[in-house]
Amino acid sequence: MSTNRRYAIIGGGALGGFYGTRLQQHGCEVHYLLRSDAQHVREHGWRVESVDGDFDLPNVHAYAEPRDMPRCDVVCLALKTTHNHLLGDILPHVLAEDGFVLVMQNGLDIERDVAAVVGHERVVGCLCFLCSNKVGPGHIRHLDYGKVRIAEHTEDGTPGGVTERMRDLAADLERANLEVILSEDLVLARWQKLVWNVPYNGLSVVLDATTDRLMADPDGLALVTDLMGEVQRGAAACGRTIDDDFVQQMLDHTRKMKPYRTSMKIDFDEGRPMEVQTMFTRPWDKAAQHGAALPVLGALTRQLRFLDRRNLNQRIAAR
Amino acid sequence: MSTNRRYAIIGGGALGGFYGTRLQQHGCEVHYLLRSDAQHVREHGWRVESVDGDFDLPNVHAYAEPRDMPRCDVVCLALKTTHNHLLGDILPHVLAEDGFVLVMQNGLDIERDVAAVVGHERVVGCLCFLCSNKVGPGHIRHLDYGKVRIAEHTEDGTPGGVTERMRDLAADLERANLEVILSEDLVLARWQKLVWNVPYNGLSVVLDATTDRLMADPDGLALVTDLMGEVQRGAAACGRTIDDDFVQQMLDHTRKMKPYRTSMKIDFDEGRPMEVQTMFTRPWDKAAQHGAALPVLGALTRQLRFLDRRNLNQRIAAR
Repeated sequence: MSTNRRYAIIGGGALGGFYGTRLQQHGCEVHYLLRSDAQHVREHGWRVESVDGDFDLPNVHAYAEPRDMPRCDVVCLALKTTHNHLLGDILPHVLAEDGFVLVMQNGLDIERDVAAVVGHERVVGCLCFLCSNKVGPGHIRHLDYGKVRIAEHTEDGTPGGVTERMRDLAADLERANLEVILSEDLVLARWQKLVWNVPYNGLSVVLDATTDRLMADPDGLALVTDLMGEVQRGAAACGRTIDDDFVQQMLDHTRKMKPYRTSMKIDFDEGRPMEVQTMFTRPWDKAAQHGAALPVLGALTRQLRFLDRRNLNQRIAAR
Repeated sequence: MSTNRRYAIIGGGALGGFYGTRLQQHGCEVHYLLRSDAQHVREHGWRVESVDGDFDLPNVHAYAEPRDMPRCDVVCLALKTTHNHLLGDILPHVLAEDGFVLVMQNGLDIERDVAAVVGHERVVGCLCFLCSNKVGPGHIRHLDYGKVRIAEHTEDGTPGGVTERMRDLAADLERANLEVILSEDLVLARWQKLVWNVPYNGLSVVLDATTDRLMADPDGLALVTDLMGEVQRGAAACGRTIDDDFVQQMLDHTRKMKPYRTSMKIDFDEGRPMEVQTMFTRPWDKAAQHGAALPVLGALTRQLRFLDRRNLNQRIAAR
């Protein structure tokens, strides 16, 4: 059984490379916008090592320029948010008239950045729970998970309910053996994801630590739980309730995970820009706008901006 | 002109090595308790390079064992506070009946640790404003400053006023061309010193940064000022007022300093224990006991304890 929806994957890293190849493997037409390895993938295809079974895709539609791509029904945005200044040059070339952008990025209010280019009605949010690495040109290593949560973006931030296009998309993803949850409230889902992302991404960079080290140390664990508590308070200030059971699940779940180097830590170690703006500055600011002071999140945000700026200055100096 | 007071210097690092040699150079009888370089100093003496003029002291009373030392009128405690568990084995051997311990260490309530060994009435606090390094066995490099502030310790923490023994001590130090300030209130002086020590020592470790880098970055500077504000609030909770002018002076002063790697950063880089307990945990706890929550200081304290514990585990693993 195949779909007639055409997919674009914007960004062929650990995330886009994983979801794109899964959809293609199970019958979807997929077009990839890549940067450095467009030619490599066009010539040699994708190589995916996965806990769900390895596979190769020899024939791939890979592009280096958005204007060379066909218009697609679902444009999966899988760039780091640090590249979102490029959206205006990409999305208008790729998105079909009645299509939508599926925002697979991390952080808060990123759907608004996309909506500024394509309009609020053509944006759907997607939260990805995935352990995956890009290990070489056209080469993805999928370590664990793969579940996605999908929710409609709305201009005023109210819950958008479950729509027909969400169900159609879920059908394609489920055909690719991916677990899908349809959510009515994107803002709640975004804050919930921050419960994990804020402490583990932030502390892994500042303390040079994998998840297991943070959990094993009493002060590491206290910092994690303090930050989770502040994210709960930020969500509450924005009218969303994250209960303590959810927080406890995140802790239990991380304790059971294999030692994990977070994506922000990998970016930092590689000297690449970190997603501080969308994952830290925005939740901190948003909570403050709604009357919630989050001092530990604030301190961590400032530390990450300090380190990010130093990396930037070193990249400039190395030119 | 010479004094008849006999001095002991406990610890011959950058601090004890500087003040001890200055007193000896200007006529005081000084006995040094050293660890690794006792024999070296006994054989070769001290070599001091100083912004105030280089000098050598070929004949030095240096000891490796407290029981070999004569009893002294002023016992200058110049160990890192991470060695204060040794005080019970040292002070009873060295302190004269009517002498006192001059606590030259950093942090809060360290005089209480000393008083537990020698009694409250035999403790005087001393705050050292010094840029100095130990650059080799028996070899001190004095970079800048040298001023000390002296204040009486009291059991209940109330201001102890200016006493005769403080004036006598000041006379010896001034004879050694050191600037001395006599303070009535040790608790205020300790909190004031934390205004500098907490942000610069703590952030230099966590952000791997010298003082100039912290001051030049907008988020580095914001973290510094947030922490200074929290130390002010901690002092206020303990009934001591540190006004904004004082904080501004610390900022202005640091901006004018040469780029400086703090002593805590040097300890961390060398894999040695950091003075987290006395300089961070205690002010944070003390403020909390008096009703002031200091969340940024708390987060930084936890980060430092995490890093300190990791260094400890690495030292154990390397044995």
